[in-house]
Amino acid sequence: MKTSSGNFFEDFKLDQKIVHATPRTVTEGDVSLYSALYGTRFAVQSADSFAKAIGYARAPIDDLLVFHTVFGKTVPDISLNAVANLGYADCRFLLPVYPGDTLSAVSEVIGLRENANKTSGIVYVRSTGFNQHGKEALSYVRWVMVRKRDNNAPAPEAVAPKLPVEVSPEKLGAALPAIDVSKYDFTLAGSAHRFGDYKAGEKIDHVDGMTVEDAEQQIATRLYQNTAKVHFNNFAQKSDRFGKRLIYGGVVISLARALSFNGLGNAFHIAAINGGRHVAPLFAGDTVFAWSEVLDAKELPGRKDVGALRLRTVATKDKPCADFPYKNDDEYAEGVILDLDYWVLIPR
Amino acid sequence: MKTSSGNFFEDFKLDQKIVHATPRTVTEGDVSLYSALYGTRFAVQSADSFAKAIGYARAPIDDLLVFHTVFGKTVPDISLNAVANLGYADCRFLLPVYPGDTLSAVSEVIGLRENANKTSGIVYVRSTGFNQHGKEALSYVRWVMVRKRDNNAPAPEAVAPKLPVEVSPEKLGAALPAIDVSKYDFTLAGSAHRFGDYKAGEKIDHVDGMTVEDAEQQIATRLYQNTAKVHFNNFAQKSDRFGKRLIYGGVVISLARALSFNGLGNAFHIAAINGGRHVAPLFAGDTVFAWSEVLDAKELPGRKDVGALRLRTVATKDKPCADFPYKNDDEYAEGVILDLDYWVLIPR
Amino acid sequence: MKTSSGNFFEDFKLDQKIVHATPRTVTEGDVSLYSALYGTRFAVQSADSFAKAIGYARAPIDDLLVFHTVFGKTVPDISLNAVANLGYADCRFLLPVYPGDTLSAVSEVIGLRENANKTSGIVYVRSTGFNQHGKEALSYVRWVMVRKRDNNAPAPEAVAPKLPVEVSPEKLGAALPAIDVSKYDFTLAGSAHRFGDYKAGEKIDHVDGMTVEDAEQQIATRLYQNTAKVHFNNFAQKSDRFGKRLIYGGVVISLARALSFNGLGNAFHIAAINGGRHVAPLFAGDTVFAWSEVLDAKELPGRKDVGALRLRTVATKDKPCADFPYKNDDEYAEGVILDLDYWVLIPR
Repeated sequence: MKTSSGNFFEDFKLDQKIVHATPRTVTEGDVSLYSALYGTRFAVQSADSFAKAIGYARAPIDDLLVFHTVFGKTVPDISLNAVANLGYADCRFLLPVYPGDTLSAVSEVIGLRENANKTSGIVYVRSTGFNQHGKEALSYVRWVMVRKRDNNAPAPEAVAPKLPVEVSPEKLGAALPAIDVSKYDFTLAGSAHRFGDYKAGEKIDHVDGMTVEDAEQQIATRLYQNTAKVHFNNFAQKSDRFGKRLIYGGVVISLARALSFNGLGNAFHIAAINGGRHVAPLFAGDTVFAWSEVLDAKELPGRKDVGALRLRTVATKDKPCADFPYKNDDEYAEGVILDLDYWVLIPR
Repeated sequence: MKTSSGNFFEDFKLDQKIVHATPRTVTEGDVSLYSALYGTRFAVQSADSFAKAIGYARAPIDDLLVFHTVFGKTVPDISLNAVANLGYADCRFLLPVYPGDTLSAVSEVIGLRENANKTSGIVYVRSTGFNQHGKEALSYVRWVMVRKRDNNAPAPEAVAPKLPVEVSPEKLGAALPAIDVSKYDFTLAGSAHRFGDYKAGEKIDHVDGMTVEDAEQQIATRLYQNTAKVHFNNFAQKSDRFGKRLIYGGVVISLARALSFNGLGNAFHIAAINGGRHVAPLFAGDTVFAWSEVLDAKELPGRKDVGALRLRTVATKDKPCADFPYKNDDEYAEGVILDLDYWVLIPR
Repeated sequence: MKTSSGNFFEDFKLDQKIVHATPRTVTEGDVSLYSALYGTRFAVQSADSFAKAIGYARAPIDDLLVFHTVFGKTVPDISLNAVANLGYADCRFLLPVYPGDTLSAVSEVIGLRENANKTSGIVYVRSTGFNQHGKEALSYVRWVMVRKRDNNAPAPEAVAPKLPVEVSPEKLGAALPAIDVSKYDFTLAGSAHRFGDYKAGEKIDHVDGMTVEDAEQQIATRLYQNTAKVHFNNFAQKSDRFGKRLIYGGVVISLARALSFNGLGNAFHIAAINGGRHVAPLFAGDTVFAWSEVLDAKELPGRKDVGALRLRTVATKDKPCADFPYKNDDEYAEGVILDLDYWVLIPR
């Protein structure tokens, strides 16, 4: 067989290392498309002059563009036969990435657990994105439920990795050079609010809504060379449970992040993702809204330039967020589609 | 409040200066997207080799991409609560802009007039786009009708700026370096017609039609970091008077300009916009056509390389322009969506 | 008339040379859009680091982006009044093209034959794409059926060029620098299969499907500055035989090529196109599938680094290709939309 149908649950072995295909040079073209797909407005990523003034070599690539690019490489090997993408943990951004850098990805299988029904199992991988110099740019754990090819294949010994609930603050900031806050122009950045202005428990409705089209999510998902079939193949999707293409979850994350500019305009860098859950599917024609809660605010050891806010950003579909929809008892409220827990860095 | 809902009429003060957020480095990526969204074919902007041959450093950024980018920055402060975008005047392009340049924007309130019904008022601003060296790249006046937050807020003294009906020819050409017309290849440019071939009163049907999709106009509008809600939020638009998203007016202008290549192939530079009116809304699925009338043809003081044509370009929807639809008595004809009055420069 | 409605059959003369308008600098922005529109994953075109390791100056522009760009330039002069695009032959890629290069195009009329009904005729042209140094980057023959403006115009002497059924192997490889196969990382490339692993007669189902939207094909077609009306003008298309816009055939070719990565991951360079036929139209919402047959495998005279595979790639709509749908007797099977015969180069 020269074509790949991806790995099935029984193909994964504990400690297996998978070098993913298709290194990708990220360019100014990708940056433009990323901007045009989500409307992101953080000044550091938008303008070379702004980024240079505070200490970057030039405007860095948006953190989530780095994430989606690395994630995309893992899909053909890890999740082509996934039933569900279950979660992320311990995702850390480790290096600024600039136009012209080339990203590649490697994953290691760190956990395996067959499901009771023996038709699928959970695969835990740590995926690492490298730049062209072999330096780690991104590292994260994700776990997915993957179908078995042969239900009779024997179950591996069950191993579940111990994962941190949050990335601890002392691990944050590797991808952010020391910045000169005196050169950070808060007017040009579009917000006067600094680290000290946000308090744990504070909730922010990001107000705006953004409708998504299939042409947009297909363009986005292909930009990341992500091959997950459910986003592209409407012929097959028509006979699937939803009857249509699903919007790629990365699109939801990026839209929520772009919407969060309104209220978090200086939180320009995502330093880590503690966890994330795609609560419900999104379809073309739906409108995405978002709100955030400040879960924590922490100083960074040894850094006076920025502080860290731990945020929960919740995205919804066709549901404005003035009343901060989240959960009713233990169930996610109707309309919630994303529950993302992450650290952002913001000038002090 | 950390989120912005934009300014309301009573928030604006005469002579107020507003420094807009989010400087933006325009890149080759933006140029590609601009080409792909509108299909523009002017040789100067399309090819470095063509632009260099006549005296540019390289292919300059399309004038309207500069305009939309600067305009986009003003939206969050000026027109987020606009009822209507009423007009433009005295818009001049002042400097060539190249990939790698960073644009930022500042506006000054130059007029205010509350409406009789006291629920809204007209705000006149002069907006200026600067490059990374602080040089003026673009300057224009626009006026918008903006809602009041509080209908009881007191009315400011009414001040309406005196605006020129046209930019006078001696002010044209600042953004166009002296070009070597002997190196301008009219075959490669796609048209044999020079300044002297156009006469006032001449009408040109641009023949072609271009259908617009919501995915396209959303991608375009976000590329300019324009946050006007009516273009993106279909959930809200469903309960609005039109029941759907409106195509961004900048998309109409750019499409009309791109269509005008067929008939005006050497009019490669927009030097000024005298005025413009979005006569009727455009929606996804509609097809845009355009025609132009030469209103005037003027030599430029001190320049032998190019002359100026004052054009009226009229765009329509679902209405081919062989019979030059414009006005019936004083009313715009059914199907007319744009009435744009501007100066282009064209080799002599 | 300052506007062009394109040439009609009687406007073409044998041996006529047509210099096409609008040179185009291809950039990293175009590369990003090309990736995002088709999801191509060949490592050489995706990553500078990969391309440099084997001997390129940097990642080259995708061969089909070069083809579509050159083809697009010919449309306003050659095929604006085409009834049908009949075929391609002897298409050879002659030079690597890199971001920053500027492409222009010239065509020569090499054959003319009026149809029996005297309302149209077949025009054969050899079109050549040049870079900014005047070097040939691409050369191909295509023939189109073009309408007559005046059915009474006299018929030219019928001349049909003699065209090769295939580009002979010794003519392949001009656009591929000698590569160092020892530096070609087959893991990063995503496939272990080399020249010697493919045999004539082998059939490969490329498995995946890709649904196409009008916004995507319009963006793609405009990126190539292709002005063929049937792809853009839905107002006119509504009263045409299909009642809607047609997806540009170049989009089908590029999608089939991108899908073919799954099974042909190391066949990174298209060296020549022997022939191609758009068997049936594609419309928005349809899903494209593809399969390939290895028609031949040939060593290249004087080259030890790569070998040539002659492929037939067949694309279908809404029809998965596990059973390799092609022809029933002499008729193309229902659902087949493209029959493309071409040479790819692949490491030995």
